[in-house]
Amino acid sequence: MLQSSFNGTAKLPLTVRMRRSPFWERSNAAGAQGYIVYNHMLIATGFAGPEEDYRHLKSAVQVWDVGVERQIEISGPDAAKLVQMSTPRDLARMKDDQCYYIPTVDRDGFMTNDPVLVRLEEDRYWVSISDSDLILFYKGVAATLNLNVEVFEPDVYPLAIQGPKADDLAAKLWGDQVRELRFFRQMSVHVNGKPMILARSGYSVQGGFELYFEGRDGAEKLWDELMEAGRDLDVRAGTPCQAERVEAGMLSYLSDITPDMTPFEAGLGSMCATDQNPGCLGWSALRKKQSPSRQIRAVEISGGPLPPQKDFWLVSDGDRSVGRISSSCRAYDFDCNAGIGLIDASHWTPGTKVQVHTSDGPRAATIKEKFWGRF
Amino acid sequence: MLQSSFNGTAKLPLTVRMRRSPFWERSNAAGAQGYIVYNHMLIATGFAGPEEDYRHLKSAVQVWDVGVERQIEISGPDAAKLVQMSTPRDLARMKDDQCYYIPTVDRDGFMTNDPVLVRLEEDRYWVSISDSDLILFYKGVAATLNLNVEVFEPDVYPLAIQGPKADDLAAKLWGDQVRELRFFRQMSVHVNGKPMILARSGYSVQGGFELYFEGRDGAEKLWDELMEAGRDLDVRAGTPCQAERVEAGMLSYLSDITPDMTPFEAGLGSMCATDQNPGCLGWSALRKKQSPSRQIRAVEISGGPLPPQKDFWLVSDGDRSVGRISSSCRAYDFDCNAGIGLIDASHWTPGTKVQVHTSDGPRAATIKEKFWGRF
Repeated sequence: MLQSSFNGTAKLPLTVRMRRSPFWERSNAAGAQGYIVYNHMLIATGFAGPEEDYRHLKSAVQVWDVGVERQIEISGPDAAKLVQMSTPRDLARMKDDQCYYIPTVDRDGFMTNDPVLVRLEEDRYWVSISDSDLILFYKGVAATLNLNVEVFEPDVYPLAIQGPKADDLAAKLWGDQVRELRFFRQMSVHVNGKPMILARSGYSVQGGFELYFEGRDGAEKLWDELMEAGRDLDVRAGTPCQAERVEAGMLSYLSDITPDMTPFEAGLGSMCATDQNPGCLGWSALRKKQSPSRQIRAVEISGGPLPPQKDFWLVSDGDRSVGRISSSCRAYDFDCNAGIGLIDASHWTPGTKVQVHTSDGPRAATIKEKFWGRF
Repeated sequence: MLQSSFNGTAKLPLTVRMRRSPFWERSNAAGAQGYIVYNHMLIATGFAGPEEDYRHLKSAVQVWDVGVERQIEISGPDAAKLVQMSTPRDLARMKDDQCYYIPTVDRDGFMTNDPVLVRLEEDRYWVSISDSDLILFYKGVAATLNLNVEVFEPDVYPLAIQGPKADDLAAKLWGDQVRELRFFRQMSVHVNGKPMILARSGYSVQGGFELYFEGRDGAEKLWDELMEAGRDLDVRAGTPCQAERVEAGMLSYLSDITPDMTPFEAGLGSMCATDQNPGCLGWSALRKKQSPSRQIRAVEISGGPLPPQKDFWLVSDGDRSVGRISSSCRAYDFDCNAGIGLIDASHWTPGTKVQVHTSDGPRAATIKEKFWGRF
């Protein structure tokens, strides 16, 4: 089979369809080892190898081209109403400088995305999406109700600064004020003389920032300034790190969360308003689905390092299917293998022994109380 | 720059996120040279090289894994109404065995996709999409109006049989009845004992069929039967052929048609109902946009073979921008270079001389009356 002859990777030609951010050339020149496609754009898969990327992210600081985190701008008098229609999370008390992680759902309560919502003003939001064209949901609703909003994709490319030295690096460019920025809050900083949004957020548990870079001009200049300013901090180009995010149980839409799952199955029930509908189109359906029969669980998979995961791996009790593993990694710091499982209620109790059917054969595995290293 | 060192291609690891059809292993084993990602799935870019794939497609018959053509099933009493809300094409006279190519639009008349609509029954449709999550538009509308429909992605993977000998190959499996099937009509055939939809359609101008294969069981058996039955027809594995489709002006959503374009700009004005709104949410906006200031045009680009196109190429009058080239190819049968241009009205008259700024430098080019080889 050719599949094995190319060792789990295929060739991906660059085409008009595979969009790239203004940071892409710099990030690529820094040695990106491969790419996947996400929101019709390219995002790097790694740089120095899985373990080195992981250890460096946990000890220093990295700059990530996460331009694939597309924004949906929703602005106008009906903006808050439209955003609320897409999510069961109550947005009533959200403040102008806040970011919220929001599950978004259809009318059956199934997840359509899991964006970070950035409130810029009372009637202006950015929905910073994971991998689905959620803009089409907002367009469908806005058209049907003739809402007084604009819904469009602005020319914004997030750049993440992640790792324990992220504060030190960001402070070099934007001053010590950034150290005071609280988690999931945002502020304005000047980049090439223009105000841009800097949020304390990012797709790692190491902490850091995401800069919502606007337009394409000056992107490489900023990249170079960060690399120069961070020289003594051992700054490197990076990208979301599979091992770091999987061991900590950070979920990925279209891998761990699939469009047939509710927020309750994804373990996001605490984000769903229960007593009263805040205005979400899927709220009534969700109310009836608060007791899921399967849910995301941490799974420790025994043995040495795992093969690269190309497909869902069945989880069984040795006999019948009791779930699936959607993402897996070597959790280097914990000297074990971590998996993100979607596990049936019959087997989700911590300590339950199961089998994980990897592409290299079955492995003994155990349901864990929680993921690794996060709390 | 690493970009040039990998010669226009990057490594694409196979992951859970990069979905594959049940035909993928067979197609891959037949020698797929690379993949792009389309509707969150992999589709091959070529097999034996651009010119050989092209000549073979035009002279024999190929079997294509086009499982990336995802279906949105819309069924129930409000199905026809919901589908009509998404498109300015009047669906009132559509018959149960018909397929329609439909531009779909948002309320501003901008294109959200360009699917083939398959009518299965009066209240049951498959919207066979190009590369965007159009299902989210339908879900948004259905939720808002509480429509009596189901909207979901069925487990269907189209397999295309394309080329001048497509009828001969299809007839070997399903009898001479398939020869009578008219363009964009569909019928039921038996595959592994189950009825499935066979349509005379496909993303080439050579003619042929698309089988809407349901489920995953028996896919490889069918593939093998086609390869065996077509041995004397020189059947080969294939995939949509860039040179064949570009020279003929077959458009591709997210390359040639972008979400900032109307059907009129895409040259699809004849598909838009003009006198009366058939029920489309974008119809009123479209009415005011019937006279576009830019439109798709065939562009002949002078000189020898072109470099691979990785980005839009600017079209200029030597001084200022007058458009872009979104797709290009060597039109081998016509011994020239063909481009799909989006050209400003000031320069779209056939015979107008322009410059195309390729990644290897500017080339003289001419606006053509029509594309090559189609009519």
